[in-house]
Amino acid sequence: MSAQAGPASPGGDPTDLAGLAGLRLARAAWSRLVEPGDVVAGALLEAVGPASALRWLTSMAPDPASIRHGVGRLCDHLGVEDAGARRRMERAVARWQPRLVGLDPRRELSVLSRLGGRLVIPEDAEWPRRLADLGTGAPVCLWVRGRAAVGACLERSVALVGARASTDYGEQVTAQLALGLGDLGYTTVSGGAYGIDAAVHRGSLAGGRTTVAFLAGGVDRLYPAGNADLLRAVVDGGGLVISEVPPGSVPSRVRFLKRNRLIAAAGAATVVVEAAWRSGSLATAAIAVDLLRPVGAVPGPVTSMASAGCHRLLRDGRAVCVTDAEEVNELAGTLGSDGAGTRTAEQVRDASARRAHDGLDAVSARVHEALPVNRGASLEAIVRAAGMSAGEVMAGIGRLELVGLAERDGAGWRLRSG
Amino acid sequence: MSAQAGPASPGGDPTDLAGLAGLRLARAAWSRLVEPGDVVAGALLEAVGPASALRWLTSMAPDPASIRHGVGRLCDHLGVEDAGARRRMERAVARWQPRLVGLDPRRELSVLSRLGGRLVIPEDAEWPRRLADLGTGAPVCLWVRGRAAVGACLERSVALVGARASTDYGEQVTAQLALGLGDLGYTTVSGGAYGIDAAVHRGSLAGGRTTVAFLAGGVDRLYPAGNADLLRAVVDGGGLVISEVPPGSVPSRVRFLKRNRLIAAAGAATVVVEAAWRSGSLATAAIAVDLLRPVGAVPGPVTSMASAGCHRLLRDGRAVCVTDAEEVNELAGTLGSDGAGTRTAEQVRDASARRAHDGLDAVSARVHEALPVNRGASLEAIVRAAGMSAGEVMAGIGRLELVGLAERDGAGWRLRSG
Repeated sequence: MSAQAGPASPGGDPTDLAGLAGLRLARAAWSRLVEPGDVVAGALLEAVGPASALRWLTSMAPDPASIRHGVGRLCDHLGVEDAGARRRMERAVARWQPRLVGLDPRRELSVLSRLGGRLVIPEDAEWPRRLADLGTGAPVCLWVRGRAAVGACLERSVALVGARASTDYGEQVTAQLALGLGDLGYTTVSGGAYGIDAAVHRGSLAGGRTTVAFLAGGVDRLYPAGNADLLRAVVDGGGLVISEVPPGSVPSRVRFLKRNRLIAAAGAATVVVEAAWRSGSLATAAIAVDLLRPVGAVPGPVTSMASAGCHRLLRDGRAVCVTDAEEVNELAGTLGSDGAGTRTAEQVRDASARRAHDGLDAVSARVHEALPVNRGASLEAIVRAAGMSAGEVMAGIGRLELVGLAERDGAGWRLRSG
Repeated sequence: MSAQAGPASPGGDPTDLAGLAGLRLARAAWSRLVEPGDVVAGALLEAVGPASALRWLTSMAPDPASIRHGVGRLCDHLGVEDAGARRRMERAVARWQPRLVGLDPRRELSVLSRLGGRLVIPEDAEWPRRLADLGTGAPVCLWVRGRAAVGACLERSVALVGARASTDYGEQVTAQLALGLGDLGYTTVSGGAYGIDAAVHRGSLAGGRTTVAFLAGGVDRLYPAGNADLLRAVVDGGGLVISEVPPGSVPSRVRFLKRNRLIAAAGAATVVVEAAWRSGSLATAAIAVDLLRPVGAVPGPVTSMASAGCHRLLRDGRAVCVTDAEEVNELAGTLGSDGAGTRTAEQVRDASARRAHDGLDAVSARVHEALPVNRGASLEAIVRAAGMSAGEVMAGIGRLELVGLAERDGAGWRLRSG
């Protein structure tokens, strides 16, 4: 299982892939091998760990027979019998293998290091907890510029997104919101683009507050170029510039779309300030809805095409109307760190005092306490009751179902009777 | 029981109150005796009819003993034993009696007639059906200027309301909405005030479409004076100017508030265009919500105080975001004459074909068809399913409960089993 065994090994490149066994290096390598949000990679890394997964990948020659054999061995080992899952894994390997050529995470890490940045991985204490809601689609690692601890920085944060083609109205409202949210102790999260994104970062900086930009390309190339100074100011101002793709990566269309899920997942709520009828910001809002994050939309003149997307969100009931920072605070509070933190401590105490079933892990125990006895509660309701993230609740329900303590009831779940 | 018996009779006035026995004259008299929305009067007129009620009122002397005696006689006759109801009736009589002095509906009708107007009463074919949703708070009669039949004119209508202190933005959007709704075949309904109301009427007139103004004072005094020409243009343009108080009545604060319920009840939907945080338009919207009318709000810049009330409605989920006439049409269609009309015809056919219980009146039969078999449906759901007004559905349910064909289930109603 040495790297040299596979023809897809780096060839003339002096990199020793076998030496990438270290967790950090392996994750850095994987972030180069896969496109953002690759759930097959996510499941693989979760199942065998990044270093073993990398060793396994480099053990296969880039021909269908070798891949089929390698995938077969792994799936047998993991007890995966589903033929569809095996075929998906074979296709994924064929997707990843070409990128083994020239793979050199040490070089990328040194580029990052020269920029004053660092790699943050899920095993680090500073990993932001909300990204866990992305499940197997969570990033492999984060390439980070800026001194602040990522988790602490994002703990109380709101994503503000909107159109590149913004109006003066939109930019002014955005800057006011960012300023006001800063005064309320929120970090703002956005995408570093022109228009509303830039107004978000500028507004927070103007208030001397923390702001975070998730980029679609590498953090070495501050894109768009016209915002390079602004993004440097974000880093210098105590904020963060973050990407899940390594230095040198170009910001492709797919990466922009996938980047949006990080923005939606990172914040306690997502607010759309201006968006045209069809807009990337609406995609971000849709992801936030899927993640059970509260979504807000800022209205504007109905005569302004730049507000049409916001009005669409309001009309469809997918967003709440928000007009100032205080209203965004209310919105974020419904699932934000605020309420959740308070409720959690109490519930954990109650749970330990009353719970009938010892031996449950902390997450399952809290979900168990939040489940209703009679009618099934929706995921959203359980999330609220438990004061936990949707990802945690889903995981907890899964374990409770396994041990026979929870059951489905209609579209929801309840305590298993008897 | 002659009018002369009571000291509150018109004294020197030549009017013969006994001669007001005619339904139309009696209703005209009652609209002078009571303030708008007097539910005690509404219940009385429903129970004994306007002419008898008037004869009864004039039979009592204006002293507590006479009133107690007269109310006692009536309540005994009607089988009303509740002491609270008797006290409410006594207080109402004391309220109405002073207005018997100088009562002269013939003169008021002749004032109206000279203005080219006419009195429309619930017994007339042209009475607008939606006002029935106001129950005992429905107007006693309508003093109408304009040639169009009231019911036909309001059958497909939308109420557009908003701030007197409107902005250019609000007025432009309003005029566009009124125009667009006219093109979709809607009559617009508003209150004839400055600002948004005026923009509604102007917009409809500009499109050569019908618009209706409900005034808080008499239709002889076109208030506010600055809109007198506009209101005359409404009448000349085939629209209507309507009041429930007789000519000569001043538009008091209470009458403005009560007038709002007519606007909310008359339209298939109510749309607020601009409204400050505290605003009469929000009161109209609240009445529309109570009447189960769909309510829309037009958003505007969050920096504009004139839109704060609209945003509040959106935020509280009491209104749907609407940005153009097409979206208002969708809104009105959910309970408007459109869908209701279509569904009604079909349902009546289905009902006659299938229904097991003959002998039901048409309204009860339709409600019967709309009731679910298993779980109780909410009033709102039944209203939607039946394509009828909330008032009709409530009346139908009442009758079905009486004959044992419907029963309560939780917060709703269902077919009675067995």
